[in-house]
Amino acid sequence: MASNSFGKIFRITTFGESHGEALGVVIDGCPAGLELAAEDINSWLQLRKPHVSQYVSPRSEPDKAEILSGVFQGKTTGAPIAIMVENIDTDSSKYEPIKNILRPGHANFTYYEKYGVFDYRGGGRASARETLCRVAAGAVAMKILAKQQIKTAAFVKSIGSVVMAAPLPDIDLLRKLTYDSPVYCPNATTADLMIREIEKVKAAKDSIGGIVEFWAENLPAGLGDPIYSKLEANLASAMLSIPASRGFEIGAGFAAAAMTGKEHNDQFVKLNNKITTVSNNAGGVLGGISTGMPLVGRVAFKPTPSIMQPQKTVDINGDECELQLPAGSRHDLCVAIRAVPVVEAMCALVIADAILYNQAISS
Amino acid sequence: MASNSFGKIFRITTFGESHGEALGVVIDGCPAGLELAAEDINSWLQLRKPHVSQYVSPRSEPDKAEILSGVFQGKTTGAPIAIMVENIDTDSSKYEPIKNILRPGHANFTYYEKYGVFDYRGGGRASARETLCRVAAGAVAMKILAKQQIKTAAFVKSIGSVVMAAPLPDIDLLRKLTYDSPVYCPNATTADLMIREIEKVKAAKDSIGGIVEFWAENLPAGLGDPIYSKLEANLASAMLSIPASRGFEIGAGFAAAAMTGKEHNDQFVKLNNKITTVSNNAGGVLGGISTGMPLVGRVAFKPTPSIMQPQKTVDINGDECELQLPAGSRHDLCVAIRAVPVVEAMCALVIADAILYNQAISS
Amino acid sequence: MASNSFGKIFRITTFGESHGEALGVVIDGCPAGLELAAEDINSWLQLRKPHVSQYVSPRSEPDKAEILSGVFQGKTTGAPIAIMVENIDTDSSKYEPIKNILRPGHANFTYYEKYGVFDYRGGGRASARETLCRVAAGAVAMKILAKQQIKTAAFVKSIGSVVMAAPLPDIDLLRKLTYDSPVYCPNATTADLMIREIEKVKAAKDSIGGIVEFWAENLPAGLGDPIYSKLEANLASAMLSIPASRGFEIGAGFAAAAMTGKEHNDQFVKLNNKITTVSNNAGGVLGGISTGMPLVGRVAFKPTPSIMQPQKTVDINGDECELQLPAGSRHDLCVAIRAVPVVEAMCALVIADAILYNQAISS
Amino acid sequence: MASNSFGKIFRITTFGESHGEALGVVIDGCPAGLELAAEDINSWLQLRKPHVSQYVSPRSEPDKAEILSGVFQGKTTGAPIAIMVENIDTDSSKYEPIKNILRPGHANFTYYEKYGVFDYRGGGRASARETLCRVAAGAVAMKILAKQQIKTAAFVKSIGSVVMAAPLPDIDLLRKLTYDSPVYCPNATTADLMIREIEKVKAAKDSIGGIVEFWAENLPAGLGDPIYSKLEANLASAMLSIPASRGFEIGAGFAAAAMTGKEHNDQFVKLNNKITTVSNNAGGVLGGISTGMPLVGRVAFKPTPSIMQPQKTVDINGDECELQLPAGSRHDLCVAIRAVPVVEAMCALVIADAILYNQAISS
Repeated sequence: MASNSFGKIFRITTFGESHGEALGVVIDGCPAGLELAAEDINSWLQLRKPHVSQYVSPRSEPDKAEILSGVFQGKTTGAPIAIMVENIDTDSSKYEPIKNILRPGHANFTYYEKYGVFDYRGGGRASARETLCRVAAGAVAMKILAKQQIKTAAFVKSIGSVVMAAPLPDIDLLRKLTYDSPVYCPNATTADLMIREIEKVKAAKDSIGGIVEFWAENLPAGLGDPIYSKLEANLASAMLSIPASRGFEIGAGFAAAAMTGKEHNDQFVKLNNKITTVSNNAGGVLGGISTGMPLVGRVAFKPTPSIMQPQKTVDINGDECELQLPAGSRHDLCVAIRAVPVVEAMCALVIADAILYNQAISS
Repeated sequence: MASNSFGKIFRITTFGESHGEALGVVIDGCPAGLELAAEDINSWLQLRKPHVSQYVSPRSEPDKAEILSGVFQGKTTGAPIAIMVENIDTDSSKYEPIKNILRPGHANFTYYEKYGVFDYRGGGRASARETLCRVAAGAVAMKILAKQQIKTAAFVKSIGSVVMAAPLPDIDLLRKLTYDSPVYCPNATTADLMIREIEKVKAAKDSIGGIVEFWAENLPAGLGDPIYSKLEANLASAMLSIPASRGFEIGAGFAAAAMTGKEHNDQFVKLNNKITTVSNNAGGVLGGISTGMPLVGRVAFKPTPSIMQPQKTVDINGDECELQLPAGSRHDLCVAIRAVPVVEAMCALVIADAILYNQAISS
Repeated sequence: MASNSFGKIFRITTFGESHGEALGVVIDGCPAGLELAAEDINSWLQLRKPHVSQYVSPRSEPDKAEILSGVFQGKTTGAPIAIMVENIDTDSSKYEPIKNILRPGHANFTYYEKYGVFDYRGGGRASARETLCRVAAGAVAMKILAKQQIKTAAFVKSIGSVVMAAPLPDIDLLRKLTYDSPVYCPNATTADLMIREIEKVKAAKDSIGGIVEFWAENLPAGLGDPIYSKLEANLASAMLSIPASRGFEIGAGFAAAAMTGKEHNDQFVKLNNKITTVSNNAGGVLGGISTGMPLVGRVAFKPTPSIMQPQKTVDINGDECELQLPAGSRHDLCVAIRAVPVVEAMCALVIADAILYNQAISS
Repeated sequence: MASNSFGKIFRITTFGESHGEALGVVIDGCPAGLELAAEDINSWLQLRKPHVSQYVSPRSEPDKAEILSGVFQGKTTGAPIAIMVENIDTDSSKYEPIKNILRPGHANFTYYEKYGVFDYRGGGRASARETLCRVAAGAVAMKILAKQQIKTAAFVKSIGSVVMAAPLPDIDLLRKLTYDSPVYCPNATTADLMIREIEKVKAAKDSIGGIVEFWAENLPAGLGDPIYSKLEANLASAMLSIPASRGFEIGAGFAAAAMTGKEHNDQFVKLNNKITTVSNNAGGVLGGISTGMPLVGRVAFKPTPSIMQPQKTVDINGDECELQLPAGSRHDLCVAIRAVPVVEAMCALVIADAILYNQAISS
């Protein structure tokens, strides 16, 4: 029921605000006996961390995770795993002057309307900083995937009008190239064009949207649960819960709407004694259940609503005013970049949960 | 937990296969005191029923719903509402010859892999016939929406390359024009072009995809629950659980990925003593919570995988074979058409659930 | 969330009122491949059926279950299993004259207060007739238990002041003797005394309470999930959801409150190469997890609130009146008797769910 | 699903082990706008704290709660409330010599069997120390109850064979007298006898069981949700999840099994323009829904399994050995005493959840 939890068996509950004491996640339903150390989580957190490159928000946070429970002598015990990250760089004085201004594209208006109160410091609970909890939990989920040799990756597919067109390489290489790139795009040429795009919007005191693509390979056929826990339904829910995401598609996605059945259908063949398909428009899912082909999908992110130029708006009382973010405000120019490890983590969470549920109902 | 349930407080559980005894839905968490009769449900079911036009599958089913429980003297009692529709037209002899053939784009392969068994008659549990349960439940959810004057609509936005471009009229009119159209497209000119597109693929023994757009108006600000039950996350999950859906977007959606912040941000203004926005790229949701502006999104549907031309494939043992559907097989040429009331129903289910949860946590 | 569902993975949702069209249950999360036929369910239903003996309510119902979905060619398919029992003997004219009278010990007062409406015919949703759905679902759960050679039993331990003192025999025999007894008590001598007790209250136009004891043998060590899904917590919830139940205890139960640690602790020993305990005050559970010893507990049932003598009360408006049930009203003299198969079914549901969840989290 | 969570709307998730870094609880679904400070929680924690008297375990812990999230400017924000208590006094060297010994009445055997691993330090996750999370969450739940003037209390009803017989006073006084008593029994004479009982078992290097009774007053009629979330079913689940609890009863409870209907039925009357009952054998609940009369029930606790005399047992390999707890081991002589605030907290959690769910489904 709880709206701050995700997953059914491998279930996470996150807490914390941008400028509160700490953020954290409690993972319930994790099998016992998995090797787990804080470093496993921290190496992941580094990937989504501010300062990862000049193209993302320059908040200075160590983002060091502590495991508070659920691990004993280096192994998970079956008890809930609580992971906490303290907030250090939380000077919220910059937010004071604008705390009553409704920021276009931001959640302060709707939080006020819903709750009658809003922790305005750094976006409070609505801050994308919450996503570090997802990445931390994703690192644990990856342990379950690893036992089945399932691999994941995610990368920036497009920024503004710059779209990566080249075919995808091997998933290990893809992942390496992605996280080596300052804009998390594995294709160096495209990455350069993306950087140019970002610099253009920076100069214009604007921001820009982007698309993240995710992959998962080596899934066994049979993961995902009809009717309302279809793999793609769970992925869609996972991805649309990420701040700034506006769309999700699986396989051919929206393009499928313009295709004919003949074009879109993936032909079954037997290859190396295994039934598979010659194409993968399905994106690895039929009827909500994995086919064994790569799981492929995309998530659209809107441009960061925080821009450095003045914007007309109203304040909490409805009086007209202008929003001018203070110089030195910390915002990503393109949130899609930092969303890459978050998308990958959410993908891992969905798959881990599907694996465990599948074990449950196997006879 | 259960994968055949949807919603948290207003929670539905569906059952039934295409050619089994009956399909049905149990609704739990419906407030007492709502007026409800079988006719309320049946008028909705007629909208998704086969034979609604020549462009959808010609299965002959009365699709008459019976209310088995939860209603007394014309009003809901707070007890679970069970609604059942018996299957009548269930001659499954046509499926016998092809029962072991893996049908491209179909779920029989993945069901076999997952469960080791598949009720192949008419697609079994994987059949889109399950969606009548959603429409029946949606009719009940609409009662909750109606008490708050919330209105919904959905329509075919595109079929193949034919896209409806015209601006949208008043929501009541939009709904009327939609369900009066043989292809559920409110714009008559576009509808004619869509019909031509469908006739083209019919002649080619092929099928075609399409996009359905949904609207909901008059939502109060404040519906939807961060972090993992954001309104758009619940809608995404709802929509991607519909058979043949491949993508979901809210507001500007994927187009937002190519926009700048200045373009995408919706400016706040005070109008008629109410805070609102001058544009609605957000699609009525900020931070997962409704803004009070219209809720707008889109769902992409793949072309029907069942096509009347022969297709190369393998059988359940991996042996190569050809799939030729028998003459007179019953399949939609474009599933997006019949999906319209389903999308509208899922939208209503998500909103009803958000309303009830919001009541729960209000202090 | 839904209050008409029970279980997490093996999850049932029940619907129906005493005098409505039908009662039913939808089972989600049942593994595929289990052999299941209507007869498996009906043989169980006969055990809780009215008319089973002269000591329970004489309602004439065939109570014949129909499986509407989830079974194909004699086996479960992994799809939800819907089971329906039509109501036949539903003349509710007897309830008309007393429909506005608040019946002592009955739920019509609280249903009115909560829902503002009450289906008074035969107790509506509050009727113990709902328990046939549990028994039907329990019959399916038993299939899961059977695969692991887990056996269950339940029997009447006491009626009024008559308490069965003799030690318990082998579980198969215990079960047989129980269901052969007219008062579901396996000890013939005690059963005779119980019958005398019942006849005494019958003559006095009164009713009487009783205690049901349940057993389950052959559970593997390791079932049940700390902290809030402990085996005994789930059993307690299961049992207290049965109409008229007022108490639950596991192992030594309330008697443990008067014991010392030395008396109560069960000593561990190794027997036949397996670690076990020499006594079983724990009732087969330590820390919420099964020990491998027999699971033993008890459920207390209050006397039937419907009695044939006049009772002072008020009507729905608070006006004083007298309740005199019409001659020929159908009520059990001791509900504990008919509760026996219900308690056994609930026990099976809890164990089946624990088995499946345990499979989920095993690494 | 998750087994470390409790409640549906007002939902808690607890984490932490006896000797780990910290214990904590995340509360989701708490309404915004409630005043909340760490002191509100800490005053409750003092009630269950070791050292509260000489009759409970002498562990030296400040048990000081920190609120990590969900509160801003002294009020709840609608975001999850995370509360953490660090473990300080965690020298686990005493557990090293006995870590492989199966302790009679303890959970180390079943944890090993289930998870293959056990954090033996202080009982790990199975430690009653987890109950401080419940008490912390209960303190927040109390805020919701307070808004409706609902009051709760719990007290030691019996220890061993000493049973408090006197009638109960006013609930405020009852609560005050209870927490002023060294054995949490509001009747001073009985308390003295209980102390003598405890001293007797202490001298005998033994321990003793007890019964805790709980009360809640001023509940509106209408709380609790048929069929599987009946108020008493949720209470039973709540209470049986407390370590060492072995039984639960509501109202007349097990005694009802020996009563006749005439004796047990509570007569309805109109009093001060409100419908109520002249007696309260029902314990405030009919059909799973509150009547408006006081909610009354009891929880049985077994004697502490840790006793200071040697016990025969086996080790993890099944080899016979003797368990002798080291001098100075920290264990309660009667866990029922310290369970009092835990029972009261669980009662508050169940009621708060029922209040919120009732708001949800009200039309």
